[in-house]
Amino acid sequence: MAKNDTKNDTAVLRMHCPDQPGIIAVITEFITNNRGNILYLDQYVDRVNRIFYMRVEWDLADFLIPKEKLQEYFHTLYASRYNLTYRLSFTSHRQRMAIFVSKMSHCLYDLLSRYIAGDWAVEIPLIISNHPDLAIVGKQFDIPFEVIPVNRDNKAEMEQREFELLERHGIDFIVLARYMQVLSEDFISRYPNRIINIHHSFLPAFIGAKPYHQAFERGVKLIGATSHYVTSELDAGPIIEQDIVRITHKDTVEDLVKKGRDLEKIVLSRAVEKQIQRKILTYDNKTVVFS
Amino acid sequence: MAKNDTKNDTAVLRMHCPDQPGIIAVITEFITNNRGNILYLDQYVDRVNRIFYMRVEWDLADFLIPKEKLQEYFHTLYASRYNLTYRLSFTSHRQRMAIFVSKMSHCLYDLLSRYIAGDWAVEIPLIISNHPDLAIVGKQFDIPFEVIPVNRDNKAEMEQREFELLERHGIDFIVLARYMQVLSEDFISRYPNRIINIHHSFLPAFIGAKPYHQAFERGVKLIGATSHYVTSELDAGPIIEQDIVRITHKDTVEDLVKKGRDLEKIVLSRAVEKQIQRKILTYDNKTVVFS
Amino acid sequence: MAKNDTKNDTAVLRMHCPDQPGIIAVITEFITNNRGNILYLDQYVDRVNRIFYMRVEWDLADFLIPKEKLQEYFHTLYASRYNLTYRLSFTSHRQRMAIFVSKMSHCLYDLLSRYIAGDWAVEIPLIISNHPDLAIVGKQFDIPFEVIPVNRDNKAEMEQREFELLERHGIDFIVLARYMQVLSEDFISRYPNRIINIHHSFLPAFIGAKPYHQAFERGVKLIGATSHYVTSELDAGPIIEQDIVRITHKDTVEDLVKKGRDLEKIVLSRAVEKQIQRKILTYDNKTVVFS
Amino acid sequence: MAKNDTKNDTAVLRMHCPDQPGIIAVITEFITNNRGNILYLDQYVDRVNRIFYMRVEWDLADFLIPKEKLQEYFHTLYASRYNLTYRLSFTSHRQRMAIFVSKMSHCLYDLLSRYIAGDWAVEIPLIISNHPDLAIVGKQFDIPFEVIPVNRDNKAEMEQREFELLERHGIDFIVLARYMQVLSEDFISRYPNRIINIHHSFLPAFIGAKPYHQAFERGVKLIGATSHYVTSELDAGPIIEQDIVRITHKDTVEDLVKKGRDLEKIVLSRAVEKQIQRKILTYDNKTVVFS
Repeated sequence: MAKNDTKNDTAVLRMHCPDQPGIIAVITEFITNNRGNILYLDQYVDRVNRIFYMRVEWDLADFLIPKEKLQEYFHTLYASRYNLTYRLSFTSHRQRMAIFVSKMSHCLYDLLSRYIAGDWAVEIPLIISNHPDLAIVGKQFDIPFEVIPVNRDNKAEMEQREFELLERHGIDFIVLARYMQVLSEDFISRYPNRIINIHHSFLPAFIGAKPYHQAFERGVKLIGATSHYVTSELDAGPIIEQDIVRITHKDTVEDLVKKGRDLEKIVLSRAVEKQIQRKILTYDNKTVVFS
Repeated sequence: MAKNDTKNDTAVLRMHCPDQPGIIAVITEFITNNRGNILYLDQYVDRVNRIFYMRVEWDLADFLIPKEKLQEYFHTLYASRYNLTYRLSFTSHRQRMAIFVSKMSHCLYDLLSRYIAGDWAVEIPLIISNHPDLAIVGKQFDIPFEVIPVNRDNKAEMEQREFELLERHGIDFIVLARYMQVLSEDFISRYPNRIINIHHSFLPAFIGAKPYHQAFERGVKLIGATSHYVTSELDAGPIIEQDIVRITHKDTVEDLVKKGRDLEKIVLSRAVEKQIQRKILTYDNKTVVFS
Repeated sequence: MAKNDTKNDTAVLRMHCPDQPGIIAVITEFITNNRGNILYLDQYVDRVNRIFYMRVEWDLADFLIPKEKLQEYFHTLYASRYNLTYRLSFTSHRQRMAIFVSKMSHCLYDLLSRYIAGDWAVEIPLIISNHPDLAIVGKQFDIPFEVIPVNRDNKAEMEQREFELLERHGIDFIVLARYMQVLSEDFISRYPNRIINIHHSFLPAFIGAKPYHQAFERGVKLIGATSHYVTSELDAGPIIEQDIVRITHKDTVEDLVKKGRDLEKIVLSRAVEKQIQRKILTYDNKTVVFS
Repeated sequence: MAKNDTKNDTAVLRMHCPDQPGIIAVITEFITNNRGNILYLDQYVDRVNRIFYMRVEWDLADFLIPKEKLQEYFHTLYASRYNLTYRLSFTSHRQRMAIFVSKMSHCLYDLLSRYIAGDWAVEIPLIISNHPDLAIVGKQFDIPFEVIPVNRDNKAEMEQREFELLERHGIDFIVLARYMQVLSEDFISRYPNRIINIHHSFLPAFIGAKPYHQAFERGVKLIGATSHYVTSELDAGPIIEQDIVRITHKDTVEDLVKKGRDLEKIVLSRAVEKQIQRKILTYDNKTVVFS
């Protein structure tokens, strides 16, 4: 991708600010007056907390402000005046995603089959695992697969190796595809709202280990899966997507595990897709997910 | 409702027009410059057909343009310049809804129980039926229940009586709550996009009579219900809402009818609620339903 | 229904026992050898705990064992030999159901509209409330509505009055239709697995008060409702039915409450229907719900 | 698998017959009297057409009748006496499944990722395609991938090559994983109820070509997918499984295609799993799918 070529390049602005009259007009005029063609606009006002959220995407082909100056201009003209929290991205930058796995392959295959089919505008240059079992999958898809045998005792040292790999591969965000290790606070703090996990329950029910066993014990009639950003509190980060499937008294724990796999992979992939499309905003440990 | 009191009164604009740069800024500035406080804005651009859709609602408390002049001002200033198709309403006008029923009560009870609980900002001054069976329900809820024994032979005459009743009660829109008579083209043309029907199938599957029998015969694994605006072509009007429920080989036709009832009443009530909230736009035999 | 008339009368046997070879043959032969025509049989074996569950229903028209002797015969011949836990009922006995409500009417209307339409083979001779607000609904449907203003201080005394009413009306089971009072342990122990409650969350998430507020705070993407038998531990009894509805960041707490109402009434009514059909078995704080 | 080793081997009987008193006792006694341990029994009676359906599976470890004689014994003793239509299988026979694909990979990857993870007791020795595009996937999973460039003009000849491949690989059933060619009647008649197709609509809505375009044109609010056995009438065979996903006015045809892919792969894989588990019976162009 040539840096100054804006053909087919678009800018994506995700922002929130205190709600105020005319804010939507101010931003859309800034774009259209500078000959940006708005391709997508979605906004939402939280009336209770009086916060305005918006995602707007525009074509840069005829845009008058040079791409490399856009951040500066926007910041100077609007950010402090309207007290904006925002993030400006360019779709010409294909994000780079690393996948962390352990021994279960269903989420990994689901992610990679979308990737290889070209469904997603993303690069996946790296898979990291604490076990060698799924190295074969890396080979199948020709993606570097690094085994980092992290455990409780060597976590700091092993995570250091992980940071180096993530750095070297220019990773933008991380997907935990049924990765069975808890990340350190240090690790999490380096990738705020950039680590997506799949938890195999309908959070906040059945936090922690063995949620299908917990669900079976409780005798629920539906099981769920939840994709969320990882924060330092276990299974408590901002929820991106959830879904459920119906079960009956006939289902054993093994049946729940089996039915759950389909749920997990779809719920995780939906979240990853929204991340790739830059359609998620976070605020107050919640997400705004635009359609 | 006092006509000139704008306390708690809001204006609702539903519009569509050819997509054009800055249209959202033009409309929102018109509102905010005249001291209207925007409470809700949702918009959507059909990129394929290049049409801009918007629903915006604003508080009239401090609005500078008198309510009774708003239509004229808006029309003069914007309608032809931007080639708008639009509809301007005031929430202080509680819409008046008539319900048509035959012999089945489940949709009728569902509508009335929401009405009497105060869930809906609507008036229901009239129930019309081609059978006397449900007159008792009218009595329970103290709503005039008129029996108009329409059939194929007397349709024109009976519909004339219906028009008079609808006129006399100032009816804004009509809900067919499992009403088992086909309306004439003349009738339908008097209430364009203002007659909501519930069809007991997942349209366009199983159009016409006895859809549950058709579904049973075909051996489907899900049954559905569809609420839609009535047009002159049977079961072919713009779809407002659909939902389904899972069935199995164990379900008889009677089971489908039973399971379908819950679906029908919920799917119909969801559509009626959107109608009451003025959140539906129609275009090209489809609906845009804002959330 | 005359008590000795077995026309259209059927027997329903719900049972469980340690799994053992041939148990299904033993029971079905007992019925068919005595000229009972089996109308419905559903069975299930919990392979992990080795328990056999069955529900079998048969026509009594030509059955050789007199109805009033059936319990004794069955008990003598099979109960101890096969270590059965069982319950024998006759569908000619229309169960009598009491509804407890507080101030919200949506579940009450949903139950009564099914009742009055004749969808359910049940009698509803009594509504009890701790508030007078919904007395009007009792009047609409011509069902005795008793106000028992129970609170923390007078609970024992007020429950005594409730017992008398339940006794006098010959109540078989109780439905808490958004009843906002906690029943005493004494009360619960008198109606084991015969009090059905609707909790407005996807249990075990959001136990206790204000589940929609809790759901909003946590930022979930689905909300749920759960119908369950009441036990002495709050919201922890055997789950009968659950369902969910999708929400988004746009939904306020009030929207959750509104969307939840439809869920609550449907999930409660599904459980009540299974109870009326005598299709629920309980074991180990779980339910087996036959289709 | 040694043929006479019955360790962990089970027999599966799927049958239907005219409903008659005691039929369930007859069959279960045959099994238990011969020391077969019943692991699973599910039965269902179609009361309208008076047909009894059953699937029973039992452990052969201590079974007194030799496995190779079982079919003969069962046939002689019961088949004509009770007018049974039945199918007897042994789980020690791992079924062999061929996959037909064209250019889209999502269903293929979903099937193969389950296969390679060992989720399914099946062999997949053959992939056939009318295009070379997905040969790479065959290579990734080390499965023979045969390109048979069938078209309208050469169908008879090309199908002959397919028959030879299917024969040589001992194929039991075929899965059309978004295979874009219509099979000849001759082909279909060779594999009755043994060819599973995925159609990308909620059948019987949108039969034939471009169902997502049809769905978009009609303005539906849900899209579906249907897996079914292939019969000579297009998209009209017995339905095995269906599911839907919600869409809105914001979704373009491309969005429907994208959302539909997840639906297609899950709905197809659920059907294939039931086929592998031998849990499907067909009758009258419908399926009985046991849980």
